[in-house]
Amino acid sequence: MKDAIRVGLIGFGTVGSGLAKTLLDQQDVLSRKVGLPITLSRVADIRITELPPEYRATTLTNDANDIFTDPAIDIVVELIGGIEPARTFMLKAIEAGKHVITANKALLSIHGKEIFEAAAARGVEVGFEASVGGGIPVIKALKEGLVANRIQSIRGIMNGTANYILSAMTEHGTPFAEVLAEAQRHGYAEADPTYDIEGIDTAHKLAILMSIAYGKHVQLDHISVEGISTIKPIDIDHAREFGYRIKLLAISRNHGDHVEARVHPTMVPQDHMLANINSTFNAIQFTGDIVGDVLLYGHGAGMMPTGSAVAADVVDIGRNIIAGSINRVPALSYLPQHFGQPTITPMGELTCPFYFRVTVLDQPGTLSAISGILGKHNISIKSVIQKGQRPGEPVHVVLQLHEAREADVTSAVAEIDALPACTEPTVKIRVLIEEN
Amino acid sequence: MKDAIRVGLIGFGTVGSGLAKTLLDQQDVLSRKVGLPITLSRVADIRITELPPEYRATTLTNDANDIFTDPAIDIVVELIGGIEPARTFMLKAIEAGKHVITANKALLSIHGKEIFEAAAARGVEVGFEASVGGGIPVIKALKEGLVANRIQSIRGIMNGTANYILSAMTEHGTPFAEVLAEAQRHGYAEADPTYDIEGIDTAHKLAILMSIAYGKHVQLDHISVEGISTIKPIDIDHAREFGYRIKLLAISRNHGDHVEARVHPTMVPQDHMLANINSTFNAIQFTGDIVGDVLLYGHGAGMMPTGSAVAADVVDIGRNIIAGSINRVPALSYLPQHFGQPTITPMGELTCPFYFRVTVLDQPGTLSAISGILGKHNISIKSVIQKGQRPGEPVHVVLQLHEAREADVTSAVAEIDALPACTEPTVKIRVLIEEN
Repeated sequence: MKDAIRVGLIGFGTVGSGLAKTLLDQQDVLSRKVGLPITLSRVADIRITELPPEYRATTLTNDANDIFTDPAIDIVVELIGGIEPARTFMLKAIEAGKHVITANKALLSIHGKEIFEAAAARGVEVGFEASVGGGIPVIKALKEGLVANRIQSIRGIMNGTANYILSAMTEHGTPFAEVLAEAQRHGYAEADPTYDIEGIDTAHKLAILMSIAYGKHVQLDHISVEGISTIKPIDIDHAREFGYRIKLLAISRNHGDHVEARVHPTMVPQDHMLANINSTFNAIQFTGDIVGDVLLYGHGAGMMPTGSAVAADVVDIGRNIIAGSINRVPALSYLPQHFGQPTITPMGELTCPFYFRVTVLDQPGTLSAISGILGKHNISIKSVIQKGQRPGEPVHVVLQLHEAREADVTSAVAEIDALPACTEPTVKIRVLIEEN
Repeated sequence: MKDAIRVGLIGFGTVGSGLAKTLLDQQDVLSRKVGLPITLSRVADIRITELPPEYRATTLTNDANDIFTDPAIDIVVELIGGIEPARTFMLKAIEAGKHVITANKALLSIHGKEIFEAAAARGVEVGFEASVGGGIPVIKALKEGLVANRIQSIRGIMNGTANYILSAMTEHGTPFAEVLAEAQRHGYAEADPTYDIEGIDTAHKLAILMSIAYGKHVQLDHISVEGISTIKPIDIDHAREFGYRIKLLAISRNHGDHVEARVHPTMVPQDHMLANINSTFNAIQFTGDIVGDVLLYGHGAGMMPTGSAVAADVVDIGRNIIAGSINRVPALSYLPQHFGQPTITPMGELTCPFYFRVTVLDQPGTLSAISGILGKHNISIKSVIQKGQRPGEPVHVVLQLHEAREADVTSAVAEIDALPACTEPTVKIRVLIEEN
């Protein structure tokens, strides 16, 4: 009979110290629910020489191998982020027969197949609740709470930095670059914010959710990704006028024999719940064929919310160790033998309404040229407004378009941008309709 | 090695037939996740003589005992509702060594302790995901997803009928009775809507959530309950003017040595997520000490959403049967030996801001009398508006009050209602502040 569940932690940065603090501060709550103490046995970190004094029972090492070779350790938690050496550490821990937990969405969306297959072969568990939605128990809800559903769609705000920037731009009308700089000062954005603002981090998370939702190995390069750096306050103002908020959404719709996979700024109807998720909060909405819409909301990042999610994985695996029920729930929801490869809907075949902001010199015939191009590509106009008219300066032609095919839109934008009067690339934003 | 998980169902009404349909329609999804088929072996219902033809593999009986005595049945699902014979059936099933699942919040909030203790003694599981929040996986999220948290508060819209009525009153300005009648015509409200509109059903659900959240046996009579039948469109209009929406909320705050437990109409700031949950939807917000706020949203009732939740319990218990890990997660989150009795904060000691609508004859000195009474009870006024002034008809004196003690408010209302000029009982509505 075991006397404790022992955890080895790789990485004592923000998230790692959040887990350590959680296991220490909540040990009473945890043991009254689990029945055994959960202890942090070892921490591996190459940047620190000692742990804070409250971690008396924990040994610090600078070599992650000390964790893999410690026979007392049951669960290895990787919280260093990035691809390498995180990937190698995960595989080594699995090889050593340890259960593994990670919050590393980049790693899972790129090397998930390798890691999950290695874990299945070795008979160990992989916990990754914290990889999507921070403290929100989104993975458990999808895998277990909605287990009886075929998932028909996923829509979500999955990156707090991007949502903070769009929210601040919406609230204060501040330009993107200014809000980004402020977010960096406040620690809401990284020094290199590319992953967050260009939608890559959101795509990582969508890949993970799609894999679970559909039982298909979805990888990062399956997903069409656009970021928010081209969005201007003027677009947000127009969105508001038309009854929308602009959000960076991950969207996947399941068409049975093919599935959509895309991340892009989206005009969300202002009374939709996703339109009202502000600041750094995340929200993920699943549509199940029997449950209908379910939405989960909370802190998508941060030291303690992420600690909460990682600790939930520790408990989940710890309970399986105690009960002898390892891999009671398949890591990716569907059993490995039922896993397949996805067919991704080609982006060009999607249809949705669009918003265009075309920037042109105010010359006679320009509007006629634009509408001619749109007509030629079977795109019909719902409304057109011309904004700004200072002599010699370009004007914005703002168009609301009816539902159009992506491929047509791409061709039309290329032709519009080639017009002699056009001074800047056209900004196009997709509009969310309930059916997409 | 088992070849299937076999379910016996008591009650083939709306929810029961939703479960049957779920197990039939989703059998492919379920077996690709669970690894074994889940079959509906027997249905007991006293009102029907045959099952629809698609349930070829299921035997119908009019005697629930046929289910308890069938050695092949692993899990008994009680979906008849009400207290008796539901309680007796649950206890008989447990005694027969069957795992049990119920959606019956009334039963659990009144006889939960007896049922959970009987199940623990017999070593069987009790699933009750569908008892709160319909298809929203709120019990699993709380018990497992937020396992590492001390729950600091629970706030939620947990009754779709009451929320539908308040939403319709808000949207169309229709009086309560009219909306209720319409809801009854549409099947959104029962013929006897007392439980829904008087907050009793919401209290049942709050009792269940509090028990899990705090590890205390909370029962229905611990909870202070007020319904929505006194709310008029005029109150909703005032709420809107002041920046609020009126919602029937369940609220519990955890003060460590005592916990609040109350259900009442509440003015919710209009930008709060709970203010924007409309129609029959439910939403439940937990605040955890490490995760912060987490909110879950979805269909709180209905044949298929409830079927989704019951099926999730069937899978959860089925997996424990397959893995040999019965009671891997304690039924009420905390282990039975750590369960205690709650100390409920006396309602009179609570403080919050209030809205009053006092109905009086328009006589000189009345406002002075009202403000005198409030002052005497240490209640300070934030704003006062007098509305309506048709000769000979009573007027509404609408007051926004600063934070005040419940006991003082109760005394003040009694004195105001005793004023000769007062023609109707004063309507008082509590105002949600982030700290309550």
